[in-house]
Amino acid sequence: GVLVTDQSPLLSSREGVLVTDQSPLLQGGGRGCYSCQFFSDGRRKVDYVLVFYQRKQISVRGSDRLHRLSAPPHPPHRLSVISNGSSTLSGPVGGLGCVELEADPAEGEMVLIREEFEARLLEAGLEMERDTEVRVYGPSFTRLHVPWQVLSREAEFLKIKIPTKKVRPPPLYSRVCVCNPMDGSSPNTNRGFNITSKDTFFDNATRSRILLHDEWARYGAFYKYQPVDLIRKYFGEKIGLYFAWLGVYTQLLIPASMVGIIVFCYGCYTVDMDVPSLEMCDKQQNFTMCPLCDGVCDYWHLSTACGTARASHLFDNPATVFFAIFMSLWVATFLEHWKRRQISLNHSWDLTGLEEEEDHPRPKYETVLLQKRQMMRNKEKKNEKKKKKKKKIETGVEKLTWRDRLPGYLINISSILFMFGLTFSAVFGVIVYRIVVSALMAMSPDPETKSNVRVTVTATAVIINLVVILILDEIYGAVAVWLTELEIPRTESNFEQHLILKAFLLKFMNAYAPIFYVAFFKGRFAGRPGDYVYVFNDYRMEECAPGGCLIELCIQLSIIMVGKQLIQNNVFEIGIPKLKKLIRAWKGKGISLEEREEQRARPPQQWNLDYTLVPFEGLTPEYMEMIIQFGFVSLFVASFPLAPLFALLNNVIEIRLDAKKFVTELRRPDAVQAKDIGIWYNILSGMGKFSVIINAFVISFTSDFIPRLVYQYMYSQTGTMHGFIDHTLSHFNVSNFRPGNAPTSSYLPETTVCRYKDYREPPWSAEAYQFSKTYWAVLAARLAFVILFQNLVMFLSLLVAWVIPDVPKNISEQLKREKTLLVDVFLREEKEKFHLLQSLFSSKDQPSQGHPDTAHFRTLPLGLSQGLGHYMESECCDLSPM
Amino acid sequence: GVLVTDQSPLLSSREGVLVTDQSPLLQGGGRGCYSCQFFSDGRRKVDYVLVFYQRKQISVRGSDRLHRLSAPPHPPHRLSVISNGSSTLSGPVGGLGCVELEADPAEGEMVLIREEFEARLLEAGLEMERDTEVRVYGPSFTRLHVPWQVLSREAEFLKIKIPTKKVRPPPLYSRVCVCNPMDGSSPNTNRGFNITSKDTFFDNATRSRILLHDEWARYGAFYKYQPVDLIRKYFGEKIGLYFAWLGVYTQLLIPASMVGIIVFCYGCYTVDMDVPSLEMCDKQQNFTMCPLCDGVCDYWHLSTACGTARASHLFDNPATVFFAIFMSLWVATFLEHWKRRQISLNHSWDLTGLEEEEDHPRPKYETVLLQKRQMMRNKEKKNEKKKKKKKKIETGVEKLTWRDRLPGYLINISSILFMFGLTFSAVFGVIVYRIVVSALMAMSPDPETKSNVRVTVTATAVIINLVVILILDEIYGAVAVWLTELEIPRTESNFEQHLILKAFLLKFMNAYAPIFYVAFFKGRFAGRPGDYVYVFNDYRMEECAPGGCLIELCIQLSIIMVGKQLIQNNVFEIGIPKLKKLIRAWKGKGISLEEREEQRARPPQQWNLDYTLVPFEGLTPEYMEMIIQFGFVSLFVASFPLAPLFALLNNVIEIRLDAKKFVTELRRPDAVQAKDIGIWYNILSGMGKFSVIINAFVISFTSDFIPRLVYQYMYSQTGTMHGFIDHTLSHFNVSNFRPGNAPTSSYLPETTVCRYKDYREPPWSAEAYQFSKTYWAVLAARLAFVILFQNLVMFLSLLVAWVIPDVPKNISEQLKREKTLLVDVFLREEKEKFHLLQSLFSSKDQPSQGHPDTAHFRTLPLGLSQGLGHYMESECCDLSPM
Repeated sequence: GVLVTDQSPLLSSREGVLVTDQSPLLQGGGRGCYSCQFFSDGRRKVDYVLVFYQRKQISVRGSDRLHRLSAPPHPPHRLSVISNGSSTLSGPVGGLGCVELEADPAEGEMVLIREEFEARLLEAGLEMERDTEVRVYGPSFTRLHVPWQVLSREAEFLKIKIPTKKVRPPPLYSRVCVCNPMDGSSPNTNRGFNITSKDTFFDNATRSRILLHDEWARYGAFYKYQPVDLIRKYFGEKIGLYFAWLGVYTQLLIPASMVGIIVFCYGCYTVDMDVPSLEMCDKQQNFTMCPLCDGVCDYWHLSTACGTARASHLFDNPATVFFAIFMSLWVATFLEHWKRRQISLNHSWDLTGLEEEEDHPRPKYETVLLQKRQMMRNKEKKNEKKKKKKKKIETGVEKLTWRDRLPGYLINISSILFMFGLTFSAVFGVIVYRIVVSALMAMSPDPETKSNVRVTVTATAVIINLVVILILDEIYGAVAVWLTELEIPRTESNFEQHLILKAFLLKFMNAYAPIFYVAFFKGRFAGRPGDYVYVFNDYRMEECAPGGCLIELCIQLSIIMVGKQLIQNNVFEIGIPKLKKLIRAWKGKGISLEEREEQRARPPQQWNLDYTLVPFEGLTPEYMEMIIQFGFVSLFVASFPLAPLFALLNNVIEIRLDAKKFVTELRRPDAVQAKDIGIWYNILSGMGKFSVIINAFVISFTSDFIPRLVYQYMYSQTGTMHGFIDHTLSHFNVSNFRPGNAPTSSYLPETTVCRYKDYREPPWSAEAYQFSKTYWAVLAARLAFVILFQNLVMFLSLLVAWVIPDVPKNISEQLKREKTLLVDVFLREEKEKFHLLQSLFSSKDQPSQGHPDTAHFRTLPLGLSQGLGHYMESECCDLSPM
Repeated sequence: GVLVTDQSPLLSSREGVLVTDQSPLLQGGGRGCYSCQFFSDGRRKVDYVLVFYQRKQISVRGSDRLHRLSAPPHPPHRLSVISNGSSTLSGPVGGLGCVELEADPAEGEMVLIREEFEARLLEAGLEMERDTEVRVYGPSFTRLHVPWQVLSREAEFLKIKIPTKKVRPPPLYSRVCVCNPMDGSSPNTNRGFNITSKDTFFDNATRSRILLHDEWARYGAFYKYQPVDLIRKYFGEKIGLYFAWLGVYTQLLIPASMVGIIVFCYGCYTVDMDVPSLEMCDKQQNFTMCPLCDGVCDYWHLSTACGTARASHLFDNPATVFFAIFMSLWVATFLEHWKRRQISLNHSWDLTGLEEEEDHPRPKYETVLLQKRQMMRNKEKKNEKKKKKKKKIETGVEKLTWRDRLPGYLINISSILFMFGLTFSAVFGVIVYRIVVSALMAMSPDPETKSNVRVTVTATAVIINLVVILILDEIYGAVAVWLTELEIPRTESNFEQHLILKAFLLKFMNAYAPIFYVAFFKGRFAGRPGDYVYVFNDYRMEECAPGGCLIELCIQLSIIMVGKQLIQNNVFEIGIPKLKKLIRAWKGKGISLEEREEQRARPPQQWNLDYTLVPFEGLTPEYMEMIIQFGFVSLFVASFPLAPLFALLNNVIEIRLDAKKFVTELRRPDAVQAKDIGIWYNILSGMGKFSVIINAFVISFTSDFIPRLVYQYMYSQTGTMHGFIDHTLSHFNVSNFRPGNAPTSSYLPETTVCRYKDYREPPWSAEAYQFSKTYWAVLAARLAFVILFQNLVMFLSLLVAWVIPDVPKNISEQLKREKTLLVDVFLREEKEKFHLLQSLFSSKDQPSQGHPDTAHFRTLPLGLSQGLGHYMESECCDLSPM
């Protein structure tokens, strides 16, 4: 038998066993020490380190005294002992949910609580080691070791999938069939587990999770770059899933960027064949355009806008429509692909049977509940005293109702509305900046300045936009945490979900508000020559460049996307952590000479070094960054086909950066099991749906695609695009200028009729300057396109989701094979049972020890399905696939 | 211990036990006999009856000789022994998948096959009884009994959830805690199972399924009406789910019909306040309308169309828009509600752990595969002979490729296209009928005939439509089966899926093509006065009534919906089965006098009576009828708010009819387990999505809602609806009639300008009779409404699906409680194991029989999780909720 059939032989095999899992990291890092992986006896492995920070002076606020390592950053840090309902682990804790140190307990109380906590740990069977010398202040470390018995008990309790319980072993263990390794004629035969040591039986992530999976945090990190696969194994499933997701996303960006490049190249290639831009550049067909503002501005020639027209064509051509459809299907494919990957991972990480963990209430929630209970009791006492009635039975306050949360909700709603207002004001501020500066520059006498107006204004405005976005992004992140705390969510997962939704809403608005403005609002309320719309009485509403709004949208998108990613990667992900580390190191220099001497004498332990690292603050910022990027790739991709390429370039770096950060710059996070990426999937899927309608509107309203089609098939005499520019320009009779609105000085004084880009009735019509029939026809065509595009793409997306099966074929086949094996085992077992029954009946007085197989069933520490596990083990080499 | 810990006491308890499950049915029916429930020994229960039909003469086709009871109706009937891969059940059958009697085997061969089949049944442990007297021809019955050992073995094999395996017992067993029944202080304590008899341990459905779950069919029905719940229990989960679904659907139709009635009442109430219909009826504002056809037709006054205008308002008012949104959300709610109900049922019927059954290949597939193998072998032999080469290794043909199916696919595609063509021709035929008849009647000199033209033509046309739909419906049902057989699907579930999709596509097209025509095409290509569009050179394209197309759509919908349901319920669901029974009875009269004498002497056994019933033909027709009805309720509900009411009335009857049919008129179907309603849910959900866009189009294009809004907010001088009729009517100058097109004789000869309903430029415009600006503006508004409506409703539907949790709260709470119990059991078990281990180590030489608990673990027939089951049993009374 290969399986661990008894405990006694293994108990002896522990001495001197190298922890194979961690050694490569230790060797590579160089900074760790082998000895500090163990207690001072050199045998018991350090599984978890608690740190207790003692201040030099007695401070007024006690919140910082006891650090919860790698806890979320929201103050105050606290020590929480959460009862998990198991009487064996938390013993007499009973109903007391958590102990909090939010108030300012006296020094003695602190020590008391700490002692009580440690006593409970000992009671639960953990072993403990402290520093030999007791220091009065600064961090003091308590190292914990979890003995084999506790690990196996807790493993069963947490229902971690361990080999005996399932037919298929998790990939953490070596898949060698020891009983006949050379007989591997079929892939199914090499099943079974070679467990040689109890120290590797539970891998590190499992080990750290079992120990104190919801009490304190873990302290440990290794200083070397690792491949992503190892990171998954080391940090647990939740972080593993993030990297897997990032991998799938980045991988699927490759085809998207390639198609994007092709579309862009198509634009470049056809720019010289595009009739409308050729017509615009044609100096012979020179249209005299109406002045862009009243009084100051002069008439101008359309051919001066030749450049932007040509640039527009790069992004505004029929291939873009195809690309928008392609990207919508790409989103559907990506989501389906990720579902498959997730199921594969669930299968290979053995998470298929994992159910959501029992959700413990958050300490904050418990505190508020306790306060409420206290208040209710006080009230009742008062009532009793006052009215001397005993009618009111003391009802146990079981949970917080919406009444308790009402103030929090109100603050939430008003704050979110305020921040929406803030975002819109920022956008509006930039618009005002643009209008004012361009007006001022247009009035400048210097012709050099005048010609550069548009470029200068656009560039500076976008940069201001970018800076505002970056600043608000950070602010909103912090505000979202604060607001979610105010809501007092019951559980940690509730908290996370609310936080994510809120942060997403705010950051999404922040990042996309200026882009939405350019795409759908800019230039639509500008009026017409002779009747321009004014804001603040003096400044004209801005208009898009003559080449169309799409080119501006494109500039806006590319600068915000690339700038945001560059700055966030460099400043926030590299710069600020480095800065924090520097500050930490600088603070450390403030210790006395004596201590420094001491430090020199005694080399710092691993836990001393790890303590200087940045605590892990959850995956939310990492996901958020990627989701916002996903928005750039999906939402406005019709206007910027190079977005996937920029995203791809960013992500290739991002994966490395993140991996490095996790391994070298963060304290090792608690390993958390997770089956999926949770609410992020819903957000992704929602964005996918949203992107369809946004792209439909961008194509039909922002680009010139529909007007061109309408011209070609409804108005063109020749069926070609010749004459399109003339068709899109309305006429304005200069004599219709109100006094003072005509150009004060013009180099084209003989102009009688000027042109402007709009579909309006000519001056000689009865309804002069009203929207023309063409306007309504084009509008109808635009709307019809939106309906067509949206429904077509939605249908195709459904088709894609339907065609790609959720469960990969190899997995479903493996599951089938496993089921066949299971059936076989069942039948064998039944036969054996029958024999056993017969032997029992035939010799009822004889002991049953004659059956060694069944005798060792009961010695297995891991319950439930011993029989099955046993069969899988002993038969592992002759189970060929049926 | 309450649990069945040993077999011997129960073996003795079988005698005289009344099968409680069936007795009420027997008593109520009166026709059944108690004795025929058992073998002649009065003890062994009859679990299944096989029938073998021997013909009088030796016929040419042997397909009818061996009946598979309650098999699907498609010929030929066959006897198939499908190997299920278990060596214990089918023994030496091995690779031979099925024995088929499709060819015409000689009489001797038939007997041989039958004997072989029966031998295999005996080998598998079944017990068999035949009629004592052997008849030469006619049906002969073989009754089967399944002994307890076989049942429990197969139960384990099929992984039917039996109490020991799960914490929560299925509802089939009584939930009484016997060890301390009066202590039930908490609802959780009355767990545990009181199994007093092995005959009731497996209920009937489970019993019949275990026996020969994929070999032959079952024979048994009871002659009394039952409540739906009992039907579920009796017929197995698949049929149970159908009735549950029908129940949920009918229940949710109640609020929908109520809102529909309110909307209709709103229409009735406001009909006298509706300005446009008042204007139409106003004789002073009398518009002279252009003739509706060239030459023959005369000018007419709009006020003559007053009636239809008022009728239109009943269905075409703002409340309809609200109702369309409401119904779209209703569909979302219904789907979510059904999901919840399904999960509840899965939970209470203990199907949560049920996985899809191993899918056996269909006999037809196996035959074709066998033929292919034979052919390949022959070919290879030929090749060997010819070329004397042995290069080609005989590869086992494992499955049919698309090449083998290509002819089938081609026939499929061409047939489906042909039937689409047939449907469209039928619709077109009715249109032609309408055009021709109305033209002929319009030319009739009788004024009485003329005035009734529209009513007569519409009514007769719709009735023709209805008849065509009903006939084609039956044809398409049969053709779909035939086509699916041609595809040679591998498994029965594949077959069902393909059949359903095909039948749905054909029947959906058939039922909705005329409705789609009226809603979106009728009157849109009719041209304008002076330039009418003609078909067949002579007949004008038809137009909608002056009140709008909505009222015609409404008439079409109501007649088809109500007519279809009435006729299908009465003729197809009651009439035809009765007729079939009559024919059967009539055929039975053809037996000889001798036999009749015999019959009189010996009262017919239950199986003789049941044999006269109609075989069960699957649930597909039942579901299909309801799905098509669901289409009437969801797709065009904007035009016919009373549809839910008619559906509700139909369904209240339908449930009763179906229940009666299943209980009294069909042979008892094999009980089939199913977790969900399968592909029907996808079809429902797809129809829900489709209904959003259809309703959007109906409101914006078929109804007058948008033109009214546009008039009120864009054109009306007063902001009211006054003048709307004038606004919608274009002008036509009579002098523009081409020669011969003007009315030949008119009672309004002085007319110079007549009006027609369209948005076209007036005769005095430069672009006379072109679509006017208003036309394009209205079109744009219509399209904008479609976009708005579709996206709003989709968003709200998503919201509804998101707000309604999939798992009902009480179920998720119960699951949590069960988990807590499980954890507790785990911990107890671990403790006990530890004690056991200690005692084992301390007394290694002593036998382990000292532990009675563990000794009887092994005697349980039902494997895997004995420990858990044991704990649940013995502790059942002291497990209070934590």
